[in-house]
Amino acid sequence: MFNRVAIIGLGLIGGSIGLALHKANAAQQVNGYDLAKGVSDRARKIGAIDQPYSALADAVRGAELVVLATPVGAMRVLLQNIAPALSPGAVVTDVASTKSQVISWAEEFLPPSVSFVGGHPMAGKEVSGVEAADAGLFKDRIYCLTPTARTRPVAVKKVSTFVEMLGARVRFLEPAEHDGQVAGVSHLPFIASIALVKTVAEGSAWGDASLLAANGFRDTSRLAAGSPEMYRDICLTNSEAIKRWLDEYISTLRSLRDRVAAHDKDLGETFAEAQQARLQWQTTQNSLD
Amino acid sequence: MFNRVAIIGLGLIGGSIGLALHKANAAQQVNGYDLAKGVSDRARKIGAIDQPYSALADAVRGAELVVLATPVGAMRVLLQNIAPALSPGAVVTDVASTKSQVISWAEEFLPPSVSFVGGHPMAGKEVSGVEAADAGLFKDRIYCLTPTARTRPVAVKKVSTFVEMLGARVRFLEPAEHDGQVAGVSHLPFIASIALVKTVAEGSAWGDASLLAANGFRDTSRLAAGSPEMYRDICLTNSEAIKRWLDEYISTLRSLRDRVAAHDKDLGETFAEAQQARLQWQTTQNSLD
Repeated sequence: MFNRVAIIGLGLIGGSIGLALHKANAAQQVNGYDLAKGVSDRARKIGAIDQPYSALADAVRGAELVVLATPVGAMRVLLQNIAPALSPGAVVTDVASTKSQVISWAEEFLPPSVSFVGGHPMAGKEVSGVEAADAGLFKDRIYCLTPTARTRPVAVKKVSTFVEMLGARVRFLEPAEHDGQVAGVSHLPFIASIALVKTVAEGSAWGDASLLAANGFRDTSRLAAGSPEMYRDICLTNSEAIKRWLDEYISTLRSLRDRVAAHDKDLGETFAEAQQARLQWQTTQNSLD
Repeated sequence: MFNRVAIIGLGLIGGSIGLALHKANAAQQVNGYDLAKGVSDRARKIGAIDQPYSALADAVRGAELVVLATPVGAMRVLLQNIAPALSPGAVVTDVASTKSQVISWAEEFLPPSVSFVGGHPMAGKEVSGVEAADAGLFKDRIYCLTPTARTRPVAVKKVSTFVEMLGARVRFLEPAEHDGQVAGVSHLPFIASIALVKTVAEGSAWGDASLLAANGFRDTSRLAAGSPEMYRDICLTNSEAIKRWLDEYISTLRSLRDRVAAHDKDLGETFAEAQQARLQWQTTQNSLD
């Protein structure tokens, strides 16, 4: 059981972590802080945290475990600001979508007496905000942890225990390995979706064509409705890996484009391979759920 | 009220047309034919057709209106095969996803005494087959009709009446205009989705990375699970328009790729524009539903 846990950022993820910790009876006290006015009070009301703070330093002071549950764009300043208030021996973890950049900020700004273990829960919902928080959000989900050779084993142990208390399954990866993999399965999809919307919406007949857009367009364009700031910050902190995947994607599209232009009847076989890969992924997903 | 209507191809669309015609009391008799054994009997059992036929020519003989409700890949042979059996004055329409090619086949194969009006209902479901047929499938949906300068006005009138009886809303377009618009909002999305699956599934770490793929990947990759044969036939019959949209899409992706590589902070504004376009589309969709 943790003595004192501080959750910084009380949105869907931060709020759900608080609820899950309480449900598992995993902490004696859960402190909470959120930049937006009133959010920490609402988090206390729904039972996600025990003690709201209006000053960041007060929230993390004396905490054994500090969970940074903000988008990646806020991490740099956050690490700088909490550094002076952290107790020696404290362990800090985060939930951001990209890891290498966050880890290098943590190494730059946190004092040597404090440990950092990067984390990324593979969990989410269509809706955001503490009102959508759910104690079961992490149940059986994969939760990536990216300790480095310099991370103290005791800190890794502590964060692993935290993840297990949430009901999630720990998966250890190198930070660069994590960033490369999520760039393919998570960041490339949102850029593909944004590019699709941008391409068709800039077409001269979009006013008319938009009325013909149906379920297929709805699904492939859904990610384009997500937060532009979050997507931008992911691109800024995972630029190299995203660029590599975009090169691959463009190359695949070029080849398909040439084959469409050439009326290639064998396109059906290529489409069938993609269908198989998608069905196989779906089967694996279903077996995990 | 139609005297005799023949529906060729009794899947989700053909079956739903039959149910909707019966519900509207729009035809004295609905004939049905399907290539697959047993399907026309099942269509009769659920009340989609009155009379199943095991020979194509028998199904269309004497029909005032013939509805070709098969994928576009079957249209050429179908038009050739029904031509000798059609009654003078008969009107033929189809539901295929691309129009210019189908119209040129109709002009090539149908006798001069018969009229053809290309059609494309913007309706569908996740599931296929006559078992999924639904009399309300076309209710308030847009149904494109693409008559040409050579189409007889009386035939256009007849097919418009048919569409209204289904509960759908007629939209007239030039065939090339239709094909260009659906290439953007419907065909480009499935190729983008297939290319996405192909790109990430061919990555060296796909076995591990696939476990990190979540809702974003699920939605953007969903179309890749669709019928490879149908997608191939759409590509073969709408090659020019799809090629143009793929060029635009690749060009948009290239620009985003360069900006990601350059750590361009203004990417957020571009993402926000796409978000606005997507939200606006969703609002329009909701107001239509």
